[in-house]
Amino acid sequence: MDITSREASNKRAFERMCGAEPVLVDVQPAAKVLPGMKRNTILTSGPPLPWTGYHGGQRDAILGAALFEGLAKSRVDAETKLRAGEIEIKGCHDFDCVGSLAGIHTASMPVFVVENKKEGNFGYCNFYEGTNPRRLNYGVYDKDVHDRLLFLQDIVAPVLGEAIRLSGGIPLKPIMQRGLHMGDELHSRNTATSLLFVKELFPHLLHLHSANSDAVEKALKALTEDHYFFLRLSMAAAKCSADAAHGIEGSSIVTAMGFNCKNFAIRVSGLGDEWFLGPHASVEAKLFDGHTEDEITWMGGESPITETIGLGGFAQAAAFPLQRYQGGSAEAMAERNLQMYHITFAENPNFKIPYFGYRGTPTGIDIMSVLKNNILPVMDIGIAGRDGGQIGAGVVKAPAECFESAYAAFRSRYEG
Amino acid sequence: MDITSREASNKRAFERMCGAEPVLVDVQPAAKVLPGMKRNTILTSGPPLPWTGYHGGQRDAILGAALFEGLAKSRVDAETKLRAGEIEIKGCHDFDCVGSLAGIHTASMPVFVVENKKEGNFGYCNFYEGTNPRRLNYGVYDKDVHDRLLFLQDIVAPVLGEAIRLSGGIPLKPIMQRGLHMGDELHSRNTATSLLFVKELFPHLLHLHSANSDAVEKALKALTEDHYFFLRLSMAAAKCSADAAHGIEGSSIVTAMGFNCKNFAIRVSGLGDEWFLGPHASVEAKLFDGHTEDEITWMGGESPITETIGLGGFAQAAAFPLQRYQGGSAEAMAERNLQMYHITFAENPNFKIPYFGYRGTPTGIDIMSVLKNNILPVMDIGIAGRDGGQIGAGVVKAPAECFESAYAAFRSRYEG
Repeated sequence: MDITSREASNKRAFERMCGAEPVLVDVQPAAKVLPGMKRNTILTSGPPLPWTGYHGGQRDAILGAALFEGLAKSRVDAETKLRAGEIEIKGCHDFDCVGSLAGIHTASMPVFVVENKKEGNFGYCNFYEGTNPRRLNYGVYDKDVHDRLLFLQDIVAPVLGEAIRLSGGIPLKPIMQRGLHMGDELHSRNTATSLLFVKELFPHLLHLHSANSDAVEKALKALTEDHYFFLRLSMAAAKCSADAAHGIEGSSIVTAMGFNCKNFAIRVSGLGDEWFLGPHASVEAKLFDGHTEDEITWMGGESPITETIGLGGFAQAAAFPLQRYQGGSAEAMAERNLQMYHITFAENPNFKIPYFGYRGTPTGIDIMSVLKNNILPVMDIGIAGRDGGQIGAGVVKAPAECFESAYAAFRSRYEG
Repeated sequence: MDITSREASNKRAFERMCGAEPVLVDVQPAAKVLPGMKRNTILTSGPPLPWTGYHGGQRDAILGAALFEGLAKSRVDAETKLRAGEIEIKGCHDFDCVGSLAGIHTASMPVFVVENKKEGNFGYCNFYEGTNPRRLNYGVYDKDVHDRLLFLQDIVAPVLGEAIRLSGGIPLKPIMQRGLHMGDELHSRNTATSLLFVKELFPHLLHLHSANSDAVEKALKALTEDHYFFLRLSMAAAKCSADAAHGIEGSSIVTAMGFNCKNFAIRVSGLGDEWFLGPHASVEAKLFDGHTEDEITWMGGESPITETIGLGGFAQAAAFPLQRYQGGSAEAMAERNLQMYHITFAENPNFKIPYFGYRGTPTGIDIMSVLKNNILPVMDIGIAGRDGGQIGAGVVKAPAECFESAYAAFRSRYEG
């Protein structure tokens, strides 16, 4: 395959990625909307592993999921059923879905239903669990986690679903565009977009209040009590945008990045659904007080879908306030952001960085450019601790190996 | 007076300015709360002039004010009564108040009541008129302006007042602090703070909705339809903060900057209520499409009270998105912002700039430092057009003459 036709394929992928029009249309239980999801399916982050492949926090999160969903009576019971395949483990990405950290989705969990109105495909993601650093997606399952998940499911999700249906659908791209001008990069910082999202919901919450004041007030509190609510919407929007660019013959553009407890992995538009694996990313972390580097652990994560479409680490210079959360300096953030222009197809026509004079974010990672320039994609992520829970945040670099093995597959498929 | 005692006085002024705790406690008609305001008083921006001294847009705005308030039956009638002193013109600043552009306040106009809980003094400012560039404060008075002012007075203000009283008071400083981390500089950009303010109000709007759904929905729309609503709160908060630093014997810190159609002017903490005058500021403007430089006109403005306490032009590097509104580049904004450290007493302990590694904004303009370093304060302002209405925005520099005449007064008072 010659460079001209690869260029044409990549252009098509880039245009479909950037042309997506993600609209939040509903909130529904996962099993009701995720294609092929069954009552006994547990989704988790990264390329799926056999049950025995999961360890640490991701394993604990899967066990917690089985208990939460009532698929098992005890951890031992859950292990038996998981080993026997009575409870099946699948990868979120194969269900049009993306997961944060361990990425657990069970059948009854509410998910945001985001439709790419341009192509008609969907992206799904469940809800942010709240301010407590001990969450199911950080490998913890206890009474607090259980209660919080039920609260989201029974109180927050019904109110949100009703408000969203009343709205007729909330276009997410305008919110994301504006958020980039208000200090968010839509991965580790969603402070402005969480507010902009609630602002869209306000008029509908007013209407729902008289009939159900207690639930509406509780839902409002969950939406506004901290700054991370929008991340799951950014992820679902990114998923349906990236998927629109997937499966284009001859394209070397990355359409997913994520990891499980074992490997970092990427998918490439022109290379089908295969994951190209590498070791875990290297991290520059800023840890919460009282935690140390040796506690850092990997329990999965698919939020780098945001970097895949030109956000997060690829928009760091829009979000200097992130310094406080994940460390580094404004200069380092700007420099890192500029590097990403060398490995991406073009500048995003929608997502702009004020500090760079409203230059579009670097978008559409090309595996060829990554290898040629020896520059690896950077991502803004939350950091999990060995004993479960979030212990900090930081910037990671994808490993070169993923790109090397994707390149080998690309050559063998298109030039072999 | 020696340098040591001036330094001590300036330290005291700086601490009182930064120590202010502005809390929005109420909305009331101006005449009900502004000390000494009468039914026939019209307040306007800048050092007060005799009626015959006002020209252009500021004159038109005062005439509009007389008609709006029902103090005159026609423009001719208004002119007669103004000339005769039957309608009195006063300066906002002398009523604990600050005005945007022409700064018109009449007796029945609703004002935000902001209390500095630290010192017990108050700051007042009336409401943003809305998205139409043709507004009373930009020298226009027609049926649309009239209707909009009545809408604010009769619909928006009562709802806001009730919600604010229900809240028990809304602390403004935390909103301002967070806004600086979300792309606002609290003068020409109030996008995030306007949203953060509505977020505080919303739980109370929910409670008011059932009894008065139509008014609450209209008020919510007025609060959220654009990005400037918070400016008047930023100004009132700045006014009561700056006033807390005013009147300190021996202090050379500036406690107000503003202008009328004739002069730019400053007040200094240790020099009483005298205004030190200079010619109009020089401006680097970005005009709205269809307008030209020769249309630029001066019709007053007291919003530089925000720069006086370390915001606006003194926090430009927190608000790179302003480039689109008022022109310039990120580099120029950062450079200009850095210059301000040379003319201010110290770094603000509350207001921080993420791009500068969370350095505090340069705060407390010292007339001595302005003259010694030959660096003039910069301000972000809206630009009015000759025929009324807003025609753009830009950055202005205060004239050196104000500082020179203040310095002469300072020498004569303290060293004479």
